[in-house]
Amino acid sequence: MRSTIISIGDELLVGQVVNTNASWLGDQLTRIGCRVLRVDAIGDERGLIRREIEEAARRSDIVIVSGGLGPTHDDVTREAICDMLGCDLRIDEEQLRRIEKRFAERGIELNERSRRQALAPSGCRTLPNDYGSAPGLAFGVGEANVFALPGVPSEMKGIFTDQILPDLAAAAGDIEQKTYLTFGITESALADLLADTIPLLGPDVTLAYLPSPGGIRLRAMRLGSASDAHERYRRLLQTITTAAAAWIITDRDEPVAALLGRMLTERGLTLATAESCTGGLIGAALTDIPGSSAYYLGGTVTYADGAKVQFLDVEEDLLRLHGAVSEEVARAMALGIRRKTGADIAVSVTGIAGPGGGSTEKPVGTVWIGVASSRGVEARRYLFGREREYVRQRAVSQALALVREEVLAVDRIAGHEGAI
Amino acid sequence: MRSTIISIGDELLVGQVVNTNASWLGDQLTRIGCRVLRVDAIGDERGLIRREIEEAARRSDIVIVSGGLGPTHDDVTREAICDMLGCDLRIDEEQLRRIEKRFAERGIELNERSRRQALAPSGCRTLPNDYGSAPGLAFGVGEANVFALPGVPSEMKGIFTDQILPDLAAAAGDIEQKTYLTFGITESALADLLADTIPLLGPDVTLAYLPSPGGIRLRAMRLGSASDAHERYRRLLQTITTAAAAWIITDRDEPVAALLGRMLTERGLTLATAESCTGGLIGAALTDIPGSSAYYLGGTVTYADGAKVQFLDVEEDLLRLHGAVSEEVARAMALGIRRKTGADIAVSVTGIAGPGGGSTEKPVGTVWIGVASSRGVEARRYLFGREREYVRQRAVSQALALVREEVLAVDRIAGHEGAI
Repeated sequence: MRSTIISIGDELLVGQVVNTNASWLGDQLTRIGCRVLRVDAIGDERGLIRREIEEAARRSDIVIVSGGLGPTHDDVTREAICDMLGCDLRIDEEQLRRIEKRFAERGIELNERSRRQALAPSGCRTLPNDYGSAPGLAFGVGEANVFALPGVPSEMKGIFTDQILPDLAAAAGDIEQKTYLTFGITESALADLLADTIPLLGPDVTLAYLPSPGGIRLRAMRLGSASDAHERYRRLLQTITTAAAAWIITDRDEPVAALLGRMLTERGLTLATAESCTGGLIGAALTDIPGSSAYYLGGTVTYADGAKVQFLDVEEDLLRLHGAVSEEVARAMALGIRRKTGADIAVSVTGIAGPGGGSTEKPVGTVWIGVASSRGVEARRYLFGREREYVRQRAVSQALALVREEVLAVDRIAGHEGAI
Repeated sequence: MRSTIISIGDELLVGQVVNTNASWLGDQLTRIGCRVLRVDAIGDERGLIRREIEEAARRSDIVIVSGGLGPTHDDVTREAICDMLGCDLRIDEEQLRRIEKRFAERGIELNERSRRQALAPSGCRTLPNDYGSAPGLAFGVGEANVFALPGVPSEMKGIFTDQILPDLAAAAGDIEQKTYLTFGITESALADLLADTIPLLGPDVTLAYLPSPGGIRLRAMRLGSASDAHERYRRLLQTITTAAAAWIITDRDEPVAALLGRMLTERGLTLATAESCTGGLIGAALTDIPGSSAYYLGGTVTYADGAKVQFLDVEEDLLRLHGAVSEEVARAMALGIRRKTGADIAVSVTGIAGPGGGSTEKPVGTVWIGVASSRGVEARRYLFGREREYVRQRAVSQALALVREEVLAVDRIAGHEGAI
């Protein structure tokens, strides 16, 4: 299956909104073996929207449109679809009842503008929206199936997941995939390690390198059903797990924080954090995982020196002698949060995210990460570049990777080696 | 001026990479009054890249291409440009010297793959790249000026800012713009309030509604120079600031955390946070602003009940009697973190982000936010929907908005009313 994603909205062109809808949809479609030919972002223009959908329908089996279904005069996707299908707008009674119910629950009066959200082109099948006001729309153009969804991410995702994806996945047929997350190796070094996979690849067996601050994800897929494809896919997985074994930290398609959650839960271990330059991002990543309260006890954002003393009992002498960004303070922070919370494992981060605060000795990007457990305490120094947001993201990923290593090291002492 | 952005790379289609390059470029172009007609993301296909640039050149004055200039066999943007211009690749000697210098500085040996990065179509003017290996390329197609840049964000931004933007801005001529951030009002209610602006708008005077979890941003622009446009733009700003006065929290183009930073700094006030369900996201938002250590003392991520007792002196009786998600605990958390840090203003969040943990009395999405200051302590209850990530983002935005209100309330007591 071939697909085109059309994102509608002036906000995407003027740079106000990053097009995360398109990347989410691209990921979902790719996972069911549906090839995404292109992503086009266009403004709220009735004629252009129509031409764009018609053109996409000529080259694609599936066209996913998002945006332009809101309540303001800018939103003209419905009207463009009416032009295309030669039909009128009419109120979708089922959606109107949902809107009335949501407004009643919240005690808000329903105005005419919100009522108009239940309008849908009469030539479309409507996809009820439980997450917002405007229903999704399904219709055919030539041989293509077109779906128009609201631009609000939670509404778009809800309708796509519940009402579109299951049918597409069923139609996609027999595919297999496996995702590995590697950490601590560059993309080109990984490509060298995996050179033997190249003869195994083709249109029906693919391997994608997907880099992110949290590591490089490898996604292997089998799209064809020839016995030859089955065999090459089997050998591909074997080659990856053999050649890259030292760098693979999980063979599930999950964030590192979810992997850590499983590892900690299985061992009955708890975790605490003491953050400085990451400012709460590690806690945010950990608590992004539902159920994290079972193993994540919490932590501190000790941005100011006073807070490091107050919450973590870091000695003022250490701060004066070595500075807040130092091995000694990273160690003291990890020990302090572990003692205060009683956590089995504690991780601390202190660094200079920039743009200010750097020096020759401690340039911007210098980050110390400390880890404390029953094994003792250790801190390591990293240099994560010059860009503030990148420094913070890299520090989060490295801290989570060090916690994983510590869990495995605690295992070895306890004689549990081999688990996960 | 009209422009088209073309983003090249399979990683954009499969959803691995969010197209932040396009939103950054869209913002830059819009700010100098250059209208972005569309953003097209396509794969690494030589023929398609050529057709796409040619088509964009027919409708645009400026075409910005990013991606496909890397060192691997996937990267074919250079070859597509050679096809278009009917020219060959040749080594750009100046860029080669830069590459050699960068490698020498890092003590890395220059291999053939990296040397090839200095290749450029002979029909292009090259734009030296001080941030990476591949030079940018400038060339004409019909009446349009086309610029091809590397896909690595720091390289793309560096070349665009230093070598393209100044000329474009000079050619763009006389434009004006103003951005307002509103909070606590829905897009449709805001549109109702601002109905009087509609007759003022046209191609030369525009108003965009840009919604986000942090509020709705209004961006007013004047693109034309007729005296009529000046007058309508003046009346547009006047109408916005009059009709939406109660909802505008800043008239600068900045995140709320930056506004708070200015407000706190100007008054010499300090802030601390006690987070439960937001897990560190408020701290992360505050510390995303360089220099935040001047007013943000830090805080706790007290996810477990034990941590609330340990770090914030929340009484165990309160937790037992009312539960962790309650008015009483939100108040105790805010008071506790304020006492511990000595901050002037403290904010606390405790809620049920879901998907588990909800009950009839306290459904998923229930969030209590507490604020403590010299005025005392208060907590308010919110219902933020059912989706975990959305609940957390809304809680962050609301907490920052309440801190802003508290700063203004402290002002009124101190007799400073009127200062932002």
